[in-house]
Amino acid sequence: MINAAGRDVPEFIEGYGKTIPYRGAFACSGRPTVIAEARRPGSAVRGESKLCADIDEVLDKLDLHDGMTFSFHHHLRNGDYVTNMVMLAIIRRGIKDIHLASTGLFACNDPLVPYIEDGTISRISLSTIGQGGIARAISSGKLKNPCVFYSHGGRACAVENGRLHIDVAFIAAPSADPEGNMNGCIGKSACGCLSYNHADAQHADRVVAITDNLVPYPCCPAEISENFVDYVVAVDSIGDPAGIVSGATQITTDEKRLAVAGMCAELLDKAGYIREGINFQTGAGGISLAVAAKIRERLIAKNIRGGFGSGGITSYFVDMLHEGLLRALWDVQCFDQPSIDSVANDPAHMVMSGSHYGSPENKGCVANKLDVMILGAFEVDTDYNINVITGSNGVIMSAAGGNPDTAAGARISIVVSMLMKKGPTCFIKKAVNTVTTPGETVDAVVTDYGIAVNPLRTDLLEALKDSGLPLVTIEELQKKGEELGDVYGGPRLGERIVGVVEYRDGSVIDVVREVVK
Amino acid sequence: MINAAGRDVPEFIEGYGKTIPYRGAFACSGRPTVIAEARRPGSAVRGESKLCADIDEVLDKLDLHDGMTFSFHHHLRNGDYVTNMVMLAIIRRGIKDIHLASTGLFACNDPLVPYIEDGTISRISLSTIGQGGIARAISSGKLKNPCVFYSHGGRACAVENGRLHIDVAFIAAPSADPEGNMNGCIGKSACGCLSYNHADAQHADRVVAITDNLVPYPCCPAEISENFVDYVVAVDSIGDPAGIVSGATQITTDEKRLAVAGMCAELLDKAGYIREGINFQTGAGGISLAVAAKIRERLIAKNIRGGFGSGGITSYFVDMLHEGLLRALWDVQCFDQPSIDSVANDPAHMVMSGSHYGSPENKGCVANKLDVMILGAFEVDTDYNINVITGSNGVIMSAAGGNPDTAAGARISIVVSMLMKKGPTCFIKKAVNTVTTPGETVDAVVTDYGIAVNPLRTDLLEALKDSGLPLVTIEELQKKGEELGDVYGGPRLGERIVGVVEYRDGSVIDVVREVVK
Repeated sequence: MINAAGRDVPEFIEGYGKTIPYRGAFACSGRPTVIAEARRPGSAVRGESKLCADIDEVLDKLDLHDGMTFSFHHHLRNGDYVTNMVMLAIIRRGIKDIHLASTGLFACNDPLVPYIEDGTISRISLSTIGQGGIARAISSGKLKNPCVFYSHGGRACAVENGRLHIDVAFIAAPSADPEGNMNGCIGKSACGCLSYNHADAQHADRVVAITDNLVPYPCCPAEISENFVDYVVAVDSIGDPAGIVSGATQITTDEKRLAVAGMCAELLDKAGYIREGINFQTGAGGISLAVAAKIRERLIAKNIRGGFGSGGITSYFVDMLHEGLLRALWDVQCFDQPSIDSVANDPAHMVMSGSHYGSPENKGCVANKLDVMILGAFEVDTDYNINVITGSNGVIMSAAGGNPDTAAGARISIVVSMLMKKGPTCFIKKAVNTVTTPGETVDAVVTDYGIAVNPLRTDLLEALKDSGLPLVTIEELQKKGEELGDVYGGPRLGERIVGVVEYRDGSVIDVVREVVK
Repeated sequence: MINAAGRDVPEFIEGYGKTIPYRGAFACSGRPTVIAEARRPGSAVRGESKLCADIDEVLDKLDLHDGMTFSFHHHLRNGDYVTNMVMLAIIRRGIKDIHLASTGLFACNDPLVPYIEDGTISRISLSTIGQGGIARAISSGKLKNPCVFYSHGGRACAVENGRLHIDVAFIAAPSADPEGNMNGCIGKSACGCLSYNHADAQHADRVVAITDNLVPYPCCPAEISENFVDYVVAVDSIGDPAGIVSGATQITTDEKRLAVAGMCAELLDKAGYIREGINFQTGAGGISLAVAAKIRERLIAKNIRGGFGSGGITSYFVDMLHEGLLRALWDVQCFDQPSIDSVANDPAHMVMSGSHYGSPENKGCVANKLDVMILGAFEVDTDYNINVITGSNGVIMSAAGGNPDTAAGARISIVVSMLMKKGPTCFIKKAVNTVTTPGETVDAVVTDYGIAVNPLRTDLLEALKDSGLPLVTIEELQKKGEELGDVYGGPRLGERIVGVVEYRDGSVIDVVREVVK
């Protein structure tokens, strides 16, 4: 069946079930909020300790059985030790048919690949994935059931409304007290915040805090409350600091890339977005960060200040907070050490949950308040659809993250990129491999060969018509790419569905098919 | 039927329903945590404003009908303007059979008395009530259905597990932004925190923030999240600062009272409670605060420091935090301006929800971590049962508040009081008018005529046997009271049940009967 994004999605997918067809980015807008009932086997008993001697003692208490769903968070990024530590201990106990419902997985989790291959881990769902063995294993059809790709907001929404039920949430905590109050911003393995696991803490049947910094009660700040925590265990190390803060990149110093960022800022200014109180988010990529720097310059030049910066926070946003150019930061993930220090110390640097960030089913949704969002993309097609999941060879390289949430929420969402990427390949295609973010939520593409504005945004085209900016059509950019050598014809894919891409509302916007040699 | 507190509670109470018999303070210990499903009619729609021009515009949107349950919080105490403002506007619309599910009511809410008398407000439930017209109206049988008296933890528990369903929570917010992020610690009507309404915000079908300090988005700190808020309305004033901070008293300067406090501290010290990391709470009464001061002196003398102070916070606890004598404060209510300033500025002064404070059905319960609790009491009987609801004339004067929660949770809970109160009346009776807090959770009574230790606490009696403290039996204290002129024979009560006293677990520990002239 062809869905509203023009993709052929079966009504039923083996190992996933019946699909809800994607009907458009705002089809679910304003639907009721349903926060599912949460149940835990036992409330607090006075004097009873939650502290366990080690992971094995925790596992002894959890009544483990085949088919369970275990969740982890990815805030320790490529430095995470906890997912492997716990999963391998569970697997050693002979538990099978495991659903690994991590918020994200990275190359550091490659030791789990053999257990994907042998079917012990039979399901994976996530909203972030880094390049590595697990991504390749999924792409090549080694995971028994299709991997479910959520957006950050969509995953939190699924946990909250009960579609994604978690048996046990294992939360890596840079600081925790013996009762389970915990935070991400203090300790030798500090990662900033634990946002993506807030919903898990609130809704999992059992919650375990795993820390390498056990502090006296009460842990302050208590980002995740002891109210949700069943067990606490201290281990030697929950992660490698070098891997934890690996997420940030530097602002580009390349002249051409800086020019793209400059054009983007000019577009925003000409269209009236750079004004008092502007709320904005950029990715942590080199050109994206340069756009943040250009916005900063214009705020200073105009003697105005912004409202909030949000998302994955980098030092560039922290500097703007400290300079008074932003009034507040809403943080779901810290990408570097200055951000971690800031979230620990700056009251206006506030932690939000994944749900608060991007769920389409709550009354808050920070993404909805964004004026400007600078989006990342592997590919954009001539319908403005974005792919941030599969590379040009069809192999899974990343996941949707906050891309669909912020694109749908922001008043303007823009992709900034050099037209040609290594290969050479043009990032604008007639059709993307995988639709992650629907074109109706993507307003413009800014490249070194011109700016394409989504024709749906007639207001924007009108505002920019006399701007002097190099406006082109997206078809022109795509053809330019072909002229410049983009002869790439798409990956060789099999029929087998190895991934199901859920839009943030739980409908299926696309599927990922097996890569064949 | 006689329950485990020895009180005759009918199996069915007209206007309340079937009762769950009280079976003992720890009968519910460790039972499953159930957080009920929450539903809201609509999630956030991009660009849609939550701001309403006035209360009437909010009410227009709420689909009001007879029989609804409206909640309010009492953090503005006797300075609250919001409850009357909203209730009178609802009543003007002809809505009847209203359940006023406030966390607390004070004399400032007396303008609602006529609507209790005429049956418009047919139900009231609360965990705090001040002396005044509403308390008298309930006592004299003017409320159509019995008032339900919760403890703070019990009320939060009932909201969370769904027994107390709230149609609309109207939250007086000293600061709020247009999206409904709000806090209690900033603004001209600052009251500190909004703890008792956290559960309401999370579970009510609709949530309205009412503020006199509308701040730019995002309000920081966001004590209650925009995620839960449907509408925001700015009004001229939500309260009278003079009434808001009226809760605190001064440390007693009376020599005899100070001697009682000193004896209490000596008891705690001799029994081994004053040690590194001691967690404690005292009420805001004069002798209670003096006990806090005496504990402080002993911490200094021993060169040790405590863990947390909790509960209704006063400047005395804030001073101990600033002096490094306490590591943290857990706050559900600020009683004075220094506490309000501190919760706004001291990171280690943390806000907890009413559930986190005292619910018997979550995994956190701060009350369970108390080493020492100094309890208030109107009356204590020779079974150590406490009455903090009705006065010696049988009229409702207060409500359970955190008394049953902390008594059950703390390792030692002590009532400190002069034996004789104005009247003269002895506060120790053969039987209390109303059992609020069961005797099995009350460990000692310290008076100017000696210390009575609950015989259930054989360990405590053993620890104190050579202490030199004036140990007596509680029967001796009761008889001493008679000798000193306590000729009071109890109030004249009718048969009609005007109040149902729920223990924190939802069982009925006692009923309050109508006072007859």
